[in-house]
Amino acid sequence: MPKYVSIKVEERFKKSGAPEGPFSLKRILLGNPLATSQTPHQRISKVVALAVFSSDALSSVAYATEEILLALAAGGIVALNYGLPVAACIAALLFVVAVSYRQTIHAYPSGGGAYIVAKENLGQGPGLTAAAALLVDYVMTVAVSIASGVAAITSAFPSLFDHRVIICVSLVAFVTLANLRGVRESGALFAPPTYFFVFSLGMLILVGLFRTEFLGMPPAQPALLVGTEELGILLLLRAFASGCTALSGVEAISNAVPAFRTPESRNASITLGWMAAILGFLFIGTSILAHRLELVPRPEETILSQMAHGIFGSGVLYYMVQVATAMILILAANTSFADFPRLSSLLARDRFLPRQLANRGDRLVFSNGIISLGLVSALLLVIFHGNTHALIPLYAVGVFLSFTLSQLGMVRHWYDNPGPGWRRKMVVNLAGGVTTAVVTVVIAASKFLHGAWVVVLLIPLLVMGFQGVRRHYTFVRESLSLEGYKPPAPPAGHLVVVLIAGVHRGVLEALRYARSISSNVTALSVEIDPEVTERVRQRWKLWSGGIPLTVLKSSYRSVVKPLSDYLDDYLEKNPNHMVTVVLPEFIPTHWWHHLMHNQTALLIKTALLFKHGVIVTSVPHHLRRGED
Amino acid sequence: MPKYVSIKVEERFKKSGAPEGPFSLKRILLGNPLATSQTPHQRISKVVALAVFSSDALSSVAYATEEILLALAAGGIVALNYGLPVAACIAALLFVVAVSYRQTIHAYPSGGGAYIVAKENLGQGPGLTAAAALLVDYVMTVAVSIASGVAAITSAFPSLFDHRVIICVSLVAFVTLANLRGVRESGALFAPPTYFFVFSLGMLILVGLFRTEFLGMPPAQPALLVGTEELGILLLLRAFASGCTALSGVEAISNAVPAFRTPESRNASITLGWMAAILGFLFIGTSILAHRLELVPRPEETILSQMAHGIFGSGVLYYMVQVATAMILILAANTSFADFPRLSSLLARDRFLPRQLANRGDRLVFSNGIISLGLVSALLLVIFHGNTHALIPLYAVGVFLSFTLSQLGMVRHWYDNPGPGWRRKMVVNLAGGVTTAVVTVVIAASKFLHGAWVVVLLIPLLVMGFQGVRRHYTFVRESLSLEGYKPPAPPAGHLVVVLIAGVHRGVLEALRYARSISSNVTALSVEIDPEVTERVRQRWKLWSGGIPLTVLKSSYRSVVKPLSDYLDDYLEKNPNHMVTVVLPEFIPTHWWHHLMHNQTALLIKTALLFKHGVIVTSVPHHLRRGED
Repeated sequence: MPKYVSIKVEERFKKSGAPEGPFSLKRILLGNPLATSQTPHQRISKVVALAVFSSDALSSVAYATEEILLALAAGGIVALNYGLPVAACIAALLFVVAVSYRQTIHAYPSGGGAYIVAKENLGQGPGLTAAAALLVDYVMTVAVSIASGVAAITSAFPSLFDHRVIICVSLVAFVTLANLRGVRESGALFAPPTYFFVFSLGMLILVGLFRTEFLGMPPAQPALLVGTEELGILLLLRAFASGCTALSGVEAISNAVPAFRTPESRNASITLGWMAAILGFLFIGTSILAHRLELVPRPEETILSQMAHGIFGSGVLYYMVQVATAMILILAANTSFADFPRLSSLLARDRFLPRQLANRGDRLVFSNGIISLGLVSALLLVIFHGNTHALIPLYAVGVFLSFTLSQLGMVRHWYDNPGPGWRRKMVVNLAGGVTTAVVTVVIAASKFLHGAWVVVLLIPLLVMGFQGVRRHYTFVRESLSLEGYKPPAPPAGHLVVVLIAGVHRGVLEALRYARSISSNVTALSVEIDPEVTERVRQRWKLWSGGIPLTVLKSSYRSVVKPLSDYLDDYLEKNPNHMVTVVLPEFIPTHWWHHLMHNQTALLIKTALLFKHGVIVTSVPHHLRRGED
Repeated sequence: MPKYVSIKVEERFKKSGAPEGPFSLKRILLGNPLATSQTPHQRISKVVALAVFSSDALSSVAYATEEILLALAAGGIVALNYGLPVAACIAALLFVVAVSYRQTIHAYPSGGGAYIVAKENLGQGPGLTAAAALLVDYVMTVAVSIASGVAAITSAFPSLFDHRVIICVSLVAFVTLANLRGVRESGALFAPPTYFFVFSLGMLILVGLFRTEFLGMPPAQPALLVGTEELGILLLLRAFASGCTALSGVEAISNAVPAFRTPESRNASITLGWMAAILGFLFIGTSILAHRLELVPRPEETILSQMAHGIFGSGVLYYMVQVATAMILILAANTSFADFPRLSSLLARDRFLPRQLANRGDRLVFSNGIISLGLVSALLLVIFHGNTHALIPLYAVGVFLSFTLSQLGMVRHWYDNPGPGWRRKMVVNLAGGVTTAVVTVVIAASKFLHGAWVVVLLIPLLVMGFQGVRRHYTFVRESLSLEGYKPPAPPAGHLVVVLIAGVHRGVLEALRYARSISSNVTALSVEIDPEVTERVRQRWKLWSGGIPLTVLKSSYRSVVKPLSDYLDDYLEKNPNHMVTVVLPEFIPTHWWHHLMHNQTALLIKTALLFKHGVIVTSVPHHLRRGED
């Protein structure tokens, strides 16, 4: 009968505080590992939640107005007058989306991300499409937010402009590390900068509106702009598409309902309302002010910086706005570092992504997801030279595609789960879904050649990738399945081959191991230089202890090929036998000493990995002086 | 009694032509492997030898004159008049060095590289210093020659100037690949471009001298130049130091005596004379012409290109000069790809460098040395933006240091082996050695802050590295030595631990292996999720065949730490026992499928590598559908 022994090693760790890793640099950067029981279960108030979940949405004010104006600028100076109407349309869109999402909050109190809502209600295909769109969205949020945050910094300190790519990448590295440590301090971390940003930008708008309205403040500087394109519906649609980036992050609260205090749904819903109102105010406010000051986008200074310069001059208040902008944008990037790993862990648990993404690391965070996001977004920033405008066309498609799938999923949800007032709710979500669907098409079409094609192509490819991963796991599960499996009979014989290149202590240790696992042992040497072989033969006579030595000749200086042929021969003549190839391997005192030794062992292992009935074992010999 | 079996697998390869490698891209790029017996033993005539071994030396004409003028240019337009006297000094130096090296050829008919001559006559320290200087020299030859070759190309096609770094790196990659294939065609490869260069440049000089002397050709264009420095001895010394790069490669023939037809030494000596004469003529010729045309160095066009433009206009003859220059410079880089791997293989055979550098690859060349040289020189070109002038200060120190050590070694050689006329020979080498020693100091001092400090620092570091490598190998040999070694007694017991995370076919195969190598087997599972453990327990009951299951609890989600503690415990209680940890590992059908599985096996192997008495074995399970 099998016996079950259960050994608790937990106690041992408690003594020393935590297990010690071999890399102290890792410990310094990331802190000590956390026990599984230390998983946080903390609830946050509405005020804190607003800060934590709104930074992404609110921060888009820093670039959305500018992107509208930049798109319009192609139509010349007159076209800029359309900035305000376009902004008004986007504010209306924000209203529709926010109302629609409030219903999701009530229907999915456990958190209704687009992936879950679309998968549950529309099926696997739309679910995966939403997931792909969201993953792209998260990566783009990091890239755009960091690029835009750095633009805020370089607007205030123009001498840093040439170094923006390296600053971007450093910030991504910083945020990645912070997230690898764990983000439990997030309330305390997020609230001050978010409210500071709302306060600074609110001040800027109010003072600005007051000064332009009542003090008759003139435009900051005469602007010169030559249009390159006719002012038409296409131009306006493109401006609208660019401005739609203002809505990214609006869905964040609906994903995070369980983090609210009870009553969760009600609190989350109220917070979403506040957030939409603040976002609308800041967005419309900056758009009006940009219009009154007749600001024109310039590559080396952001619109927001120009605005702050115009209203506050170059004093402390100006720097306050820039610092607040940079900080909230970095926070916005940070939110993706929570969302991306969470979504990819969900996908991994459903076997649509490699399972490593579902593992919690030392600090209880999904380390692999965090690292992947950091690498991909850093790469994007390098490729696009940290230029916000170049990244924008890739951004909004994913956002609105996930909005659409989520809203349409809700429509189906109300249809399948009719409750009180379900028809009204269904109409609201339908309105939201249809609106965002139209917007998705507008964005994809108007920005297609500017870069949206990348995302339009990437999303189906990602979905196919998800399905391929799932197929692979299914295949593995099937081929490992024990259903109808007869346990294999013991091998008919077991040959152990000790591969040697010389005769030394390591070889004798390997030989000792070989003799302890089988009585059928042979040593084997591949001859590259006949002189060496002769020396090996002489020494083998002295030390072999009766084990035979086989020598294989190799004309091409390859060890692997003759060995592989020898094994094939043996197994052909002895079916149902098993062969263990024992490699004497000496372990240097420092890992970099490996560089000074042939990696033949690795080559052999790789080459024999696919050979049926052959097992390769390294017998380590630990080098040290004065051994006896 | 041991029996000796010798199996010749050579025949098997002959059938199929050559062993097939797993990577067909490698075969396409490099060609099929060559048998050891195919090592070439070919002798070449003086005419071919001159081409093969002179390209490095002759090609320096392409940049040496320019570097002199560039150094002088800091002193203003008047300083350029000193170009000719400086060039004359360098020509005199060339004469001294060439005469000195002719003696080396006669004394070392088997090839007298600076490393060998210095080591044999002056000892290990000077030998290693010479070797370090030479390795640096070879790397710099590649970098400078390629940079200068690309400058010849971009002078002719200025639109390529912005892409010079990528062109440089591509050329290095091309030369690296060509050398990895093997350079046996070198005679046919080298002779045409080298003689074409000598012819083109000779034509340019003769036509130029004729036109300026007799046809009263005016300077090409009025030159404007403002000096930044006073014209003094320091400036002249720096110009001289820059020009000394003209001598790099002069030693090549003395290293290659065995490649000549008999009488080897005599033929090599004559060839060296020709080479020095041609080099002197080309170098002085271009210097005179540059002076007469009052050429001023410009970043985007080389002096040689300006000269060819001035004399030949912009027609076919101009392009001929540029093409010839670019070609010989690339050939010059190519010579380092023979020298560097050969020297590093000598060092590796003497255990001063990792032994991989002494292995001949598939194509019988020292592949690792070739790849290392390619990588390092490509890196240098990227760091220095493919700028010849920036590289030059790092160049000449190594060249002249190795000259000096080689000549001084010869002095000692004559003293130790007095033969007919040894006193005269000793004086000649002493004159050469002292001259080059003075030049080495002049170069290192005058260029110290411009970059020579890097080499002055690097050479001792390399020597220390060589000695460290040698110490490591000595240590390894000592700790593997069987002198006074008693073969270890068989282990007192052998526990086999099969590590499992679930119960599937792979696990049962691993169990089968475990049972075949010991009677003391246990399965072991590390608990991360109690629910999973429970499932494993249930299934284990069905399939274990009586083998016990041990469960270890892990609070920190680590598999390695509890396992390691368990093994420590066991070995503490059972000294002289041995433990094999068997890991069921399934082998996916494609290598990239590995990305979708945890690399726990690798982590475990790495962690247990240093544990005494523990051996880790993977039992591969090959995934395939429809298995029974």
